[in-house]
Formats: sequence, C-alpha cells, structure tokens
Amino acid sequence: MNVLVLGADGYCGWATTLFLSARGYTVTACDNYVRRHCWDKYRLRGYPTVVAGENSPLYPVAPAEERLKSWRGLSGYEVPFVRAELDSFDEVYDLIKKTSPDTIVHFAEQRSAPFSNLSPQHALETVKNNTFSTYNLLEAIARINPAIHLVKLGTMGEYGYTPHKDVIIEGDIDFPKRPASPYHMSKCMDSIALEMMGRIYKLCVTDLHQGVVYGVATAETSMHRNLYNRFDYDGVWGTIVNRFCMQALCGVPLTVYGAGGQSRGFISIEDAIRCVEISIRNPAEPGVMVVRNQITEILKVGEVATLVQEAAKTLGINVSIENTYNPRIENENHLLKVSFGKFQTLGLTPHAMRETLVGTELKFLSRFSAGVDNHLLLNQSIADWRKHENNGKESDV
Amino acid sequence: MNVLVLGADGYCGWATTLFLSARGYTVTACDNYVRRHCWDKYRLRGYPTVVAGENSPLYPVAPAEERLKSWRGLSGYEVPFVRAELDSFDEVYDLIKKTSPDTIVHFAEQRSAPFSNLSPQHALETVKNNTFSTYNLLEAIARINPAIHLVKLGTMGEYGYTPHKDVIIEGDIDFPKRPASPYHMSKCMDSIALEMMGRIYKLCVTDLHQGVVYGVATAETSMHRNLYNRFDYDGVWGTIVNRFCMQALCGVPLTVYGAGGQSRGFISIEDAIRCVEISIRNPAEPGVMVVRNQITEILKVGEVATLVQEAAKTLGINVSIENTYNPRIENENHLLKVSFGKFQTLGLTPHAMRETLVGTELKFLSRFSAGVDNHLLLNQSIADWRKHENNGKESDV
Repeated sequence: MNVLVLGADGYCGWATTLFLSARGYTVTACDNYVRRHCWDKYRLRGYPTVVAGENSPLYPVAPAEERLKSWRGLSGYEVPFVRAELDSFDEVYDLIKKTSPDTIVHFAEQRSAPFSNLSPQHALETVKNNTFSTYNLLEAIARINPAIHLVKLGTMGEYGYTPHKDVIIEGDIDFPKRPASPYHMSKCMDSIALEMMGRIYKLCVTDLHQGVVYGVATAETSMHRNLYNRFDYDGVWGTIVNRFCMQALCGVPLTVYGAGGQSRGFISIEDAIRCVEISIRNPAEPGVMVVRNQITEILKVGEVATLVQEAAKTLGINVSIENTYNPRIENENHLLKVSFGKFQTLGLTPHAMRETLVGTELKFLSRFSAGVDNHLLLNQSIADWRKHENNGKESDV
Repeated sequence: MNVLVLGADGYCGWATTLFLSARGYTVTACDNYVRRHCWDKYRLRGYPTVVAGENSPLYPVAPAEERLKSWRGLSGYEVPFVRAELDSFDEVYDLIKKTSPDTIVHFAEQRSAPFSNLSPQHALETVKNNTFSTYNLLEAIARINPAIHLVKLGTMGEYGYTPHKDVIIEGDIDFPKRPASPYHMSKCMDSIALEMMGRIYKLCVTDLHQGVVYGVATAETSMHRNLYNRFDYDGVWGTIVNRFCMQALCGVPLTVYGAGGQSRGFISIEDAIRCVEISIRNPAEPGVMVVRNQITEILKVGEVATLVQEAAKTLGINVSIENTYNPRIENENHLLKVSFGKFQTLGLTPHAMRETLVGTELKFLSRFSAGVDNHLLLNQSIADWRKHENNGKESDV
C-alpha cells in the first residue's frame, strides 16, 4: 500500500514514516522544512529570538534526505523525500498525481498553540498554513481519485479546555467545539472543510483528534543516532510532558501553569503512530467521515508533574513542582470526560505514561541534559492570551 | 452612535450606510473596492471574462467618495470614506483606533458561492479574504475596546441546503453546520472565530445568518441617480431573485437550476438593512454571541420563479420558466424549516416578496433592461461543483 506522509520531517511525521516503512508500506515522505527555517519564515514584528525554533531541538537533526539514507542502509527500505508547499494547489495536485498514494497522512500543519498566539500575524499564518493545506488536499483528491484515504491529524483541543457537555462522544462530528487558541481554531476550520468536501465528493476521510503526544524514542528512531526524532523543550514548541522531563533532568522545578487542575488527553508517540497505522488499515467509507479520539489517558497537568517527579526519583533525581503564572485564559480546574475506546477495539494496547517515563523517556533524554539551553527550558510561553490587559498591539509578545 | 460600515461600497453595505446615516448615526464607510477591480485581482488560471464583474452591473456606479458627496448634498449628512485592506491586521487596528466606533458592521467579505467554486484558488482567496478580515477585527477589538459591538454578516447557507435536523433553531450556536460551497465553508469558519474570540475576550458579537437578499432600491438609494445601488445579474454575482427579474424584463425564460424544489430563506434589501439597524440598537452582551436568522420568507426556487413570472404579467410581460442543468451538487427537492421570529419581536414589519416585486423592483429595473448584456443574463453559473466528473484540474471553469 502506497502511503504519502505529509510533514514527514516533524516530530510525529518522522516517527510515523519509519514505523510504516518498517512494516512494508511503500512510503513517500514530504515536507517543506518550515520548522527548520521558521526563524526566517515567521520573523514577524516583535517576534523574540527564543521562539525561533532553531535552537530548540535538544540535539541536531540531519536533513530528511540524509536520515532516510541512513534508514535505507539500516532497514533496506527506500523512502523517497519530496519537498513541497501545500498552500499551493498546483503543488499538491502534482504531488498526488506523481505519487499515486492509496492513503495520505496529513501532519503538515502548524501545531503550536503558543506560536499561534504570539501575534495576530502568527494567528493568521497558522490559519493559512493549516486550512489551505487541508483544503488543497481535499480539492486535489476530489479531482484525482476520491478513493484516496485522507488521514488527517486534528486535536482533542477542538473541544476546548472546558467542555460544556458531560462526555465528548467519540465519532460525533457535531459535538460542539470550543477552541481556545488560534491554533485550535484553525483545526476546527479544517474539520469544517473535511466534513463538507467529504460529504459532497464522497471522499474517505479520517480525522484523528489527537491528544498531547509525549515521548521521543520509538523502536525505529532508536536504531541509530541519525534516526533520532526531533525533540523540543522550549515554551513554544515543547509539549508539556517532554518539557517536564527535561526540567526534571536538569534539576529545575517543573513549571505548572496556574493551579494545574486542567485536564488533558495524552498519548505516547509510540501509541500515536500505531493509531495512525490502525487508521490506514481501517479506512473511512466514502462520504462518511470518521472521527477518532486519539488518546490513551486523561490526566490533570498537576498529576503529570507528579508522575514526572516520581519517575525522576527512580533515577535518583529530586525535583520540586512550581505553580507559575498562567499565560492562558482557562479554567484551571475542570473535568474532561471523553470516550476513546475505538483504537483499543481495533487492536491498540496502550502504554501508560508512568511506565513510559520510567522505562524509556527519561533514560533516553538523560544522555542529552548537559546540552540543554536553560533559557529555553525556563521560559514559559511568551505568548500571552490576555490581549486587552496588555493594553494594545505592541505588548503581545 | 458611531458606526463603522465595512464593505460599504457593496450591495448591502451601501444601502446600510445611507439608511443609518439618514437616521442620525455617525457613519464611517470603508471598502477596498475589490468588487470593482476583481478582474485584476482575481485573474487566475482559466478564469473566464464573464465573471470579471466589471461588465456585470446594470448601470455604472460612481466611486464611493462621489456618491457620498451627493449624499451629503441631498441629506446634509457627512459620511467619510476610508479605503483599507482588512486582511492586514495593522490596517484594521489603525482603522478602529482612528474611527473609534461603537459598532462595526462587517459586510466586507467575498459573498458569492459560484465565485468560490471557480477554482481551488478562488476557494482559498475566499477563505483568506473572509476569515482574515473577521479574525483581524476580533483581535483588534479585543485589544482596543472589547465593548465595541461587532455585527457580522453570516449566511443561512451555513446550515446547508439539506439540514439533517427538523428545525434550525434561531440563536443556537451549536446547531450543526452543513455548508455546500467554499464560500459557505468560509462563513462557518468565521463563526468559529466569532464564538471563540467572543467567549475568551468577552466581546459583543452579533452574527446575522442572512438569507438571499433581493431588490435594489431603498428610500435613500432612490433619492438620486448617483445613489443607486449596485445591481448584478450575471451567473456569478447576481442572486436568484434579481437575476430572474432581469430575465423576465428581457423576455427570456427564467433559468431554474434542476427541479427547482430547493428551499431558501429570503429577505428584501429594505428589510435586511432594517435588521442591521435593529441589531445595532440591541447589542449583544459581552461574551454571549447572538445569532439571528435574518430572513422573512422561505420559498422554493420554483416558487420564486412563479412569483417573478406573475409579477411580470402585471407589467404585461409573459415569460416562461425553464428547468436547466444544475451545476451544484444538491438535493433538488427538500424542506427547510427555520425559526426566524426574533427580528419581528424587535420591531421588524417584513415585506413580502410578491408585493416587493410588483410594487418597486420590476418597475425600477424596467428602466434599464435595454442595457442588459444577454451573455451575462443567459449564462448560468460557470462554476461547476462536479470536480471529479470533470476529470482533472483544468476543466473546473
């Protein structure tokens, strides 16, 4: 089966590419390298250097072509790399014509809520990047071959931090959305395009409402230094668990925003890529959009901090937890009830965060803690949700 | 009360501007003239000349500055005109800072579903134009003065042509959306931004789900030749009732797409501008988005054709009705049940289409029928919804 992975140079995309290739899928990897060059591309008014992203990865990551060459040497599998801009319809059209995929996995979106909140320009860059790529894919699939299965990465955050109904029902495409950042808003916009184009042109669409992903090493990325997955730990690109892990390994307090009672859905990188593969094997029917909640645990932010603290203790590291200023506007103590059993019905055996942290995550990362940039580690998000309190347009970054 | 009207050079915007000015509101009119220059701006691959829009208006319309000069002479009211691009946050911010409005009426969106379906580029131009302007307004209001009331023009089309529940409940922000063109999709995307930003920053937002507007003359625009409202009758910019009226006056058959059983909500231009004024007088509370269904009648397309046919007969004109090829993908015979009583509760006395057609519309338009371009009158939409049947990207226009 031919699979085209978009955003293959990113954190989830890279791990997915190797996972699928190792299982015999014929994979084409595509990216525009925007995460590597975001400093240039997103250098907008008042944009501070710490969010450039260039300095953020814990260790250097070779260009995709080089990494895929190493992969071929180690695994025997050839994965061609294509550079393309998905905000151009013509490029998307040509890419799909050329690669003739059975399935397209679409990771190629701006994925940071703090980034999207840095300024109105960052917000609209996020909207443009995400909605244009998704819409172009749908248009091109409708014209070229409506049978192509589109597996698109959405987010649990579409439902918001404070759901207003009791349980978020998995698969209910009409469950009310309550996004809380321009990033989450852009994902809701994507969902509208997916539903509409899927319905009108009878496309095969799977929308994965992924939770917060954590972890870095997978069986494939661990095979060689050249295959290591990208790892961010700064306040804009680093996600909560990974950031807590680095803070613990560096012996600085874990920075919990506010009261820490915010609930989130979580999933390890190893489980996330398995869910994508399960989705490929179980395609959506034409015109009937499938939505799956791609999470395996629901935890409060404070609970995550405690888990990381305890895991660090097994390595002989004692860290404290600090409740810091919360730059987000959110209810700091709420419940999140979500049904998310479908992937387990389809064969997923989920990992628990507690075991993952102790078993692999912290051990892998501890090798790199000497190279950490404390400035990136300590800064919390520079993006502030509180626009009006900041009194005007210049103070948002 | 200070009102900033965005898209003031357009069909609804112009009539609203004069209506509000005549009632003593302090109005600032703003536009970017994109509808006048759309030929240049939207000259995209394979884009046929007939949709340029330059030739479409039934009679020439002077620049806004000139028309507003005439208005001042006739009414004594000064309405300054500002040219601005709303896809630039800085321009939006400066505009609001400079004009200090109490209310902003936002008509400044690409408003044609056929236009949005001409090509993927037209679709994304629509998404960009509409979502960027709306988001920038919300961002700027949040930063400058969250008490500014934003009255935003949405569309009944967000709910789709074939609603899947029995009655579309007025004011229910969670009622499922089923858009059926990139234009309608962009309006649904706007709604997401309105809800999110309104909720987080406690903004005062009214979203008007307007039906298909018909008619051209209002009390104010009729005062002088220079004040006449823009009138389009081609297959891309002309809306159904207005197009049928011109076809009737020119003695050509009324072109009903398909079976003509498609139901739509309608409202006359005179009622539409009254609804906007009612909305200004009844602002939304901070953080509680108001949605109103801005329609006064629900009719099937075939019924509209019959109404126009009968109205033409009173002027001694006999026209036939022709069921033509339907370029849209839609159920050609469905019910549309909508609750829409709120404007009447707030004081609207609606006009009926039958009386409006006989009383003013056809008589006004009959003076111009000699100047009609038959090519524009006869062409149905050049935008074809049936992408895959057209087999590839070059055949969509």
